This record gives sequence, structure tokens and C-alpha cells, in this order.
Amino acid sequence: MSKFGMYAKFTAKPGERDALSAILLESAAAAEVVAECELYIINHAETEPDVLWVTEVWSSREAHAASLALDATRAAIGRAMPLIAGVESTKIQPVGGKGLTFSNGI
Amino acid sequence: MSKFGMYAKFTAKPGERDALSAILLESAAAAEVVAECELYIINHAETEPDVLWVTEVWSSREAHAASLALDATRAAIGRAMPLIAGVESTKIQPVGGKGLTFSNGI
Repeated sequence: MSKFGMYAKFTAKPGERDALSAILLESAAAAEVVAECELYIINHAETEPDVLWVTEVWSSREAHAASLALDATRAAIGRAMPLIAGVESTKIQPVGGKGLTFSNGI
Repeated sequence: MSKFGMYAKFTAKPGERDALSAILLESAAAAEVVAECELYIINHAETEPDVLWVTEVWSSREAHAASLALDATRAAIGRAMPLIAGVESTKIQPVGGKGLTFSNGI
């Protein structure tokens, strides 16, 4: 089964980055007990003050899709939406490296 | 000390993505013994067949800079360069989340 990854770029409305960051950190904390969520890191952009990036890795595309359907996720999205000016995402397939476990032993 | 992160987008010359991926996976394997390298994941782009993304997290900006000066890194870059059509990077500051350890306990 292939892992599924995403770089999600959130542009906050002016002055709302830290409030949005707090919601995303809550979602990350909730994901601690979700085995299928392997990585959920909140990052500040280095050069764009209103931008947050979330680095996500899930055990499969289906696990990610299932997470979006959870009540807790939908509630978090509902709270975050008023703070967000825009979202873009880059979908990726992790194939190996340091920091995660890959079934091919890499 | 703040972590330092980067999304590095490598566009391979046509047909060279897998050869480039192999070099990057070797670099990731070499990083297994480098404590300051917390994440070094090679990813295939979902929609662009010549594109690889590398997700990197280092314990500090200085640790990342030091890694670039190592003979092994320079040798890998030398082997990779002929395979690469372009590189872009997005520098980020990881602030919390699941999958890494943050000194603020998040």
C-alpha cells in the first residue's frame, strides 16, 4: 500500500495566522492517536507572514480521505474557514527516506 | 533552537527521474546516522512525471548548512547535477505537530 502525502499551503487572512496555527496544532494533537496519520507538521513560511504550510503523510490515500469525513475534522475546518484567505495543495507519493518507515525497507 | 525545514522540488531531465531518485535515496540512507537530520523523505509528484519533492527537516538552519559542506553531500550533488533540469525550494519553519519532537512539548 502506497503512502499518501500532501503539502497544504494555507494563506491566512491578515493577522489571523496564529489563530489558524492554533487550530491546526489542535488537529495535529488529535491525530496523535490516529495510527494512519504518520506526519502532520505545521510550519511557518519563511518569507510570507500570512502563510502556513502543513506537511502531511498518511498510510494511504484512503486513510486521508477517511480523516476528512470525521466529525472532529469537519468541526475544525468549520472553525478555520473564517480565518483562511486561500488554500493550495500539492499531492505527493512518499517513496523512501529518513524519518518514516517504508515497507520496502528503505 | 528553531528547526529548519524545506520542500525541495527537483525537476529531472526527461527519463532521469528514477536515477535521480536513487541518488536522493542514497543521501537519505547516509543521513540515518546524522542526528541533526530529522526528516529526509523522497516523494514522487502526483501529476508531474519528471518531478521529485524532498521533504527535509533539520534541527537548525546551521545543521542544514553544515550538511551541504560535507564531502559526501558534494559528491552526491555532483552526480545528481547532470540529471537535473531545475530546482526550486520553499524554506519553512516547523512549529509543531505529529511525527517530530518539539522542544515546547507540542
